Amino acid sequence: MSELANTPEPPYYAVIFSSHRTDGDNGYAAMADRMVELAAQQPGFLGMESAREDLGITVSYWESPDAIRNWKQNAEHREAQRRGHEQWYSGFKVRVAKVERDYGI
Amino acid sequence: MSELANTPEPPYYAVIFSSHRTDGDNGYAAMADRMVELAAQQPGFLGMESAREDLGITVSYWESPDAIRNWKQNAEHREAQRRGHEQWYSGFKVRVAKVERDYGI
Repeated sequence: MSELANTPEPPYYAVIFSSHRTDGDNGYAAMADRMVELAAQQPGFLGMESAREDLGITVSYWESPDAIRNWKQNAEHREAQRRGHEQWYSGFKVRVAKVERDYGI
Repeated sequence: MSELANTPEPPYYAVIFSSHRTDGDNGYAAMADRMVELAAQQPGFLGMESAREDLGITVSYWESPDAIRNWKQNAEHREAQRRGHEQWYSGFKVRVAKVERDYGI
């Protein structure tokens, strides 16, 4: 996704997912597209921003910790997490954060 | 920066800076390198992660809200913010967030 997420007034929540990929696609691109589509259908989803160079960073925004927990437990997402852990990522970090303020142009 | 930030146990703070660039360099690359160097020297700095495709995302990590405020007020950083606003970014959003938990491999 290439646009700034149009999030509401804080507070809301951010999941910062930072990762290094393994070599080769191995089904990654199709899964990534599907997870973007699926995340956007979840209750409490507010938006997503993503960029990758050596490091990939995807930030998804959510209304509440419950919305994040529900998304993490989504069956199709769980399968993607499993394959990510085993196959697609050589390293990753997930950080769950409460957005307290924001500003911009 | 291309490595996952080696942050301590939560809680700590994240500044998520998402941006679209204007065309041309106009001194941007040199400033960006200098800001990475300067941020790393600030009290309470914990790490930084960055990637850019269409959208750029830079996440910096900090010990406390005070550390973030001090960095925002740094004179050289203020000048970079001013030029960013006027010249380098067609749009940006800054989100200040408290990291409540993290995990990874």
